[in-house]
Order: sequence, then structure tokens, then C-alpha cells
Amino acid sequence: MSSNEPASRRVRLLLAYDGSHFHGFATNEGVRTVAGSLNDALSTIAQSDIEVQGAGRTDAGVHAWGQVVSVDLPSDLDLESLPRRLTKMCAPGVVVREAAPADSDFSARFSATWRHYRYLVLNDETPDPFMAATSWHVSHPLNLPLMQMACDPLVGEHDFSSFCRRPKDGEHSLVRRVLSAEWTEQRTEHGARLLRFEIRATAFCHQMVRSIVGTLVDVGTGKITPGEITGILAACSRSAAGQVAPPEGLCLWEVGY
Amino acid sequence: MSSNEPASRRVRLLLAYDGSHFHGFATNEGVRTVAGSLNDALSTIAQSDIEVQGAGRTDAGVHAWGQVVSVDLPSDLDLESLPRRLTKMCAPGVVVREAAPADSDFSARFSATWRHYRYLVLNDETPDPFMAATSWHVSHPLNLPLMQMACDPLVGEHDFSSFCRRPKDGEHSLVRRVLSAEWTEQRTEHGARLLRFEIRATAFCHQMVRSIVGTLVDVGTGKITPGEITGILAACSRSAAGQVAPPEGLCLWEVGY
Repeated sequence: MSSNEPASRRVRLLLAYDGSHFHGFATNEGVRTVAGSLNDALSTIAQSDIEVQGAGRTDAGVHAWGQVVSVDLPSDLDLESLPRRLTKMCAPGVVVREAAPADSDFSARFSATWRHYRYLVLNDETPDPFMAATSWHVSHPLNLPLMQMACDPLVGEHDFSSFCRRPKDGEHSLVRRVLSAEWTEQRTEHGARLLRFEIRATAFCHQMVRSIVGTLVDVGTGKITPGEITGILAACSRSAAGQVAPPEGLCLWEVGY
Repeated sequence: MSSNEPASRRVRLLLAYDGSHFHGFATNEGVRTVAGSLNDALSTIAQSDIEVQGAGRTDAGVHAWGQVVSVDLPSDLDLESLPRRLTKMCAPGVVVREAAPADSDFSARFSATWRHYRYLVLNDETPDPFMAATSWHVSHPLNLPLMQMACDPLVGEHDFSSFCRRPKDGEHSLVRRVLSAEWTEQRTEHGARLLRFEIRATAFCHQMVRSIVGTLVDVGTGKITPGEITGILAACSRSAAGQVAPPEGLCLWEVGY
């Protein structure tokens, strides 16, 4: 660092975004991504190259209510007005909810102790145009008690190879600890059945929540029995599990530190 | 009608749509509209030129939960499967909720006895990316009791020239009967303040709900007093009223017959 460069400090941002506006979170040359938009806006504000690190790399179409990013910013940058400025510069689709100073060793990704995702399934004969971007429409009636039973074997520490896209280098462990997994039933404002899946884990592998939800929906239609889940986990093979749920129903809800 | 043409019958469709996908309801050469999409799909299905008539000509960006259209279709066309077929053909953004036979003189537009519109105002410092397409974000805290007081003079039969875009030919009467107008306060799932305006009238002029909402929000910020509403109505001049609320908060909720 040259002596004329301003001192920097680590900052933690809390953000919400509608994933339908983006080709995922991670920067990707030539397409609009959440991290790319944030990097561009912050680099303009700070007048130097800025790069954010996110707690979770959400896929294209996946939403966030509580994504957390860490970033080094000039120490004299006003944090109070930053959320409003960033929200305006990254519009439409991203809202920066908070900006706060963080410890110098804080990492949105590596300091996280748990992640909480939510998935919405609209389970009604008729689709709802206002839910299309934020839920998976499944018209076949789903058996919720069976789907809840099928959650139990997933809780705890397991190798989730059957529920993940294997990473390209194939070396990483796919052992993860799921802390809770639960379905609840609600009604939309129009009275349609809305099933809400909440899952919390220390960390997730790629496409893990969507693979789990797809398999649990296959349990709800009777294609897979709850008793088969333990065997699917033990198989450690992607082909043992059910379908992969589409991205639009998924939302990164909260990250714990 | 030539003797080989199949007999037709009048049909009533009930539809919901997310207006952000369309350049308004009415057909308009070269752009995607709700009526244009329906006409195309129905003409394909019926293999002849079909034209729908809607209860309300919603502007670009305005939504509907309960738009009603009337249309003449071949008598042998199966109405049970029609909603699903049309929804698929007009995706994304339109859901045909129902299709039912109607009296031969039924007109979605002229048989309607009342229309009910809803308008949502997100009144919070922070915007919400998941409400952006369906609400107006107003960050200034709004005084709801004043806004409700300002509704009262609007109920009843009045010339609404102050709250309308004057029609091009200038000949039509802008007298309308408002049956009810009411604000209620709710919370979004994230705890933000959501103000909901419900208005029912025998019919509405062009931009009437958005002009009323914009003026009532000006009452909520203190720019206009509730006592001024009677004078604004009496002025019969567009310049007497407040701002026009943006289209995205508006939804055609229900039409009565």
C-alpha cells in the first residue's frame, strides 16, 4: 500500500435481492450479477477497485432476504448514507438494508456459523402470477405429513453427495451438518395452499436445498417414501435422489455469525 | 355468418395478471398487451379471428387479480380445459382463473355494475425488492387518519375531472359514483408498514385511482389538508389535485355484475 492510499476498514453489508433480475450472485463477465453490480457501485463510490465477498453464492434466479457481504472500504466513507446510495445505484432488484463496520478479520463467507434458506411451493391447481417469481408451482396435491417425516433423516451430520452437484475438482468433502428442516403450511392472500420449507445448516453444498426440496416434493406426490431417504443419503450418488426444484422458489433468508 | 361457420356462444373469462410483463391491457400494435396475448391464443385455438372485451382497460404496469373479459367462441370449444390452455399459451404473467358460458348479451364492460381497485403503498424507510413490482415505495412517514378523513368527500356521485386524464374527444361526462374508499394498515412479512387502499365505484375515469391515491399521499405528508378535497373536486381541473401515483401499486381486484 502506498502512503497516499487512504486507510481502509472492513465493512459488513446486509442485502436483499430479487434474483429474477440477476444471473446469480457471483461476478460473471458480461452478465448482470449481484456481486458485479455491488463491485461496480462501490468502485465508483470509492474511486478504486473494490471486490465484495458474499456469505452464499446464490444461483441465477435465487433470491435473498439476508445475504451478507464483507468488503474493505476507505475508512472515511460515510456508512450511514451508504445503503441508500448503493440501493439507488444497483436498482432495480437489490436493496442494501444495512452497512456496519466489522472486525478486520471478519469474512462474510468464512466467519458464518450457519445459513438459513427458505423455499416456497405454491400447491394449488391454479398458478398465481404474483407468486411466479418467488415460488415453485406444483399442481399435484402434496402430502405434507409425509414430507415432514422425510425431513428427519436429513437433520444431523451427513455426506450430502446424493443431494449436490459434485464440485468440478471432486476433492472437497460434501459432509455438512443440517441443524433443522421443517415444512409449514400457510395460505396466500387468495386462499391458495402455500408450503414453506425452512432449512438451517452450518453450510450447504451446491444445489443442496433445491435437491432436497425436489426430493421431498417427490415424497409428497408418493413417488418416494419417507423410509427411502436414509438409503438415498447412504448411496452418496446424485442419481439416487429425486428431481431438483427450480431456483425461483429459493431464498437465502439469514446468515448467522 | 355462412352456414358452415360453427355456431358460437358468449364466454366469460376471469383472469389475473402481473402488469409488469405487459404494455397495458388494450391491444396495441407491436407491443405485448394482455388483450393482444389473449386474442392471439384464442384465435389459434378457435382457428378464426377472436377479439376479447375487458371490464377495465388497465394501463401499462397495472395489475389485475379479477379482470373479466367477454368473448364469442365456437360452441363446441371445451371450456373446462380452456383456462389451463390459455394460461400456458399466454405465459408468463397471465393466469386464466375461470371460463364459463355467459348470456348472449353479456358484456364484460357494459354489464359491469361496479369495479373494485386496490392500491398498495410501502411506507418504510427501506424499499423491499419483493414488493417493488406491486407497490409504491414512499419513505416519508404518512399520516393515515388524515388520509382516511380525506377519503370521505370522494364517496358519492361527483364530477371527477380533477382526478382524471381528460379524454381526447372531451365530450364524455366524468361524473362517477364512488361507493366506498378506505385505507387499512398492514405489515409486510418483514414487518414494514404497508398501506392498502380499497376503492369501489360504478365506473372509473382514466387514471382516476392513481390520481386519488397520489393526492391522498400528499395529504399523508401534509402537503394538502383533508379539508381541501371538496374544493379540489369542485375545481373540475386536473391542476387542482396532487401528484399521480405510479402504476405498479395498482390492481384491478374485482368486477361486479
